[in-house]
Amino acid sequence: MKKEIAFAKGHATENDFIIIHDPDGSIDLTADEVTRLCDRRAGLGADGVLRVVRAGKLGVEIPGVDPAWWFMDYRNADGSLAEMCGNGVRVFAHWLAAHQLVDIPDFTIGTRAGARPVTVVSADRDDAVVRVDMGPAEITGISTCMIGDRSFAGMGVDLGNPHLACVVPGLTPAALEIMALQAPVFDTSFFPHGVNVELVTELAAGPDGATIHMRVWERGVGETRSCGTGTVAATRAALADAGHAEGTVTVRVPGGAVEVEILGDTSTLTGPSRIVATGTVRI
Amino acid sequence: MKKEIAFAKGHATENDFIIIHDPDGSIDLTADEVTRLCDRRAGLGADGVLRVVRAGKLGVEIPGVDPAWWFMDYRNADGSLAEMCGNGVRVFAHWLAAHQLVDIPDFTIGTRAGARPVTVVSADRDDAVVRVDMGPAEITGISTCMIGDRSFAGMGVDLGNPHLACVVPGLTPAALEIMALQAPVFDTSFFPHGVNVELVTELAAGPDGATIHMRVWERGVGETRSCGTGTVAATRAALADAGHAEGTVTVRVPGGAVEVEILGDTSTLTGPSRIVATGTVRI
Repeated sequence: MKKEIAFAKGHATENDFIIIHDPDGSIDLTADEVTRLCDRRAGLGADGVLRVVRAGKLGVEIPGVDPAWWFMDYRNADGSLAEMCGNGVRVFAHWLAAHQLVDIPDFTIGTRAGARPVTVVSADRDDAVVRVDMGPAEITGISTCMIGDRSFAGMGVDLGNPHLACVVPGLTPAALEIMALQAPVFDTSFFPHGVNVELVTELAAGPDGATIHMRVWERGVGETRSCGTGTVAATRAALADAGHAEGTVTVRVPGGAVEVEILGDTSTLTGPSRIVATGTVRI
Repeated sequence: MKKEIAFAKGHATENDFIIIHDPDGSIDLTADEVTRLCDRRAGLGADGVLRVVRAGKLGVEIPGVDPAWWFMDYRNADGSLAEMCGNGVRVFAHWLAAHQLVDIPDFTIGTRAGARPVTVVSADRDDAVVRVDMGPAEITGISTCMIGDRSFAGMGVDLGNPHLACVVPGLTPAALEIMALQAPVFDTSFFPHGVNVELVTELAAGPDGATIHMRVWERGVGETRSCGTGTVAATRAALADAGHAEGTVTVRVPGGAVEVEILGDTSTLTGPSRIVATGTVRI
């Protein structure tokens, strides 16, 4: 007997998600079911699943999360649990706002990484712009990696997950776009749990103010069209490279553009969300 | 203003399609809209779109196609028109049968390649088994190709589109599965319009009778999980390799299994179809 589930599909800078609305926590998705949902040919296809559930209906208590909040139960496409996803949280907040499930603009979302304050800048049924508090972007030191036969120096930045953001002197957006990427070889004593690697152009003036271009190689995944925490790490590194501790930067990734602000000991990520489809899936 | 379209998503041996039900031919999809629908991250994602339209409502006459038939208006993911798709036609027939739009089991579908007789062996809302008349599988000669530094000899087989089916002596299913594939280099005087290349194990007895395993590199696409005409070409070549002109063979591809029968001057392909989701998409 197949399981019939109502879904929506959305993306944030082309990081795409299946949204499962489950306020009462009655839909118990197994890892195998998540994998089948996310299968891009035999299933619906997505980078991950966002289950929309009241924190109090989760069945487990998450430190720092109020039971009355909406909880982002995020699963990777391989069925594993994930703590946070800087792009997924925009789609999640968009879904809540589009269905009048929260008082906008400001509210807090529960995640496995704790509370995430968000601001819905604008939202209709299809499109939204959402700002997410990404917490501190902490510089952990300087390291290097090899991609193919090229060596890159970068800044270690911790955002709950580890990044090596490599600002490449003289790199143009056009040269970045055609660069052949492959799995980076990195210093495993510096990054014992692996690392996400960003290749970044130097901070430059653009039509939307200070701008960088970035491509990212996500650990365990490969190149992606966008990585939320990666855009913050890249901004931190590009600002530092230009002699700034704070600033607001437009970050252009293959999947679109977001705005990152580094201010004091915190950071925010503002970017688009789009909900593309709704329906019923049978797995 | 976004266009809102009812859709279904289905697949046949993991060749996946977006189904648009449009009996009166009122949904005029541009190439750009097809591309956006098939985008696997920003859209819904699929290998192609199957528009379900009465042949008489197409606006153009197709030779050999009765205006009263259902017409498979197939578009590739890049927005281009395609004549036929041996996997797509199973999903198309499944959709018609599941919605009682045809008298089963036997009926004829219109395609840009002409009439395609089909038999619905079984069908419920979610799953079906469909047999498709694939027409003659004509041997055009012997040729070779290079994949990486390995040379393969094969049989040219024409099914409306060109194939080079290489039955590899001694190749085991396990060795085929891990073989590194890349774009084949072929004889462009033999295949002036390019070629689909199949790597095939020799005909062997299996639990379902005579069996072959196959992987395919589709021209203009790369490796796919399945190719309908490719399974027929591979069967023709594997039978000929074993000294047979006719026969029924189970063909195992990465996306599942189908059964191919070569009989006299025609061929049939029998295989599964699954409809996974239905809903509304906005592009």
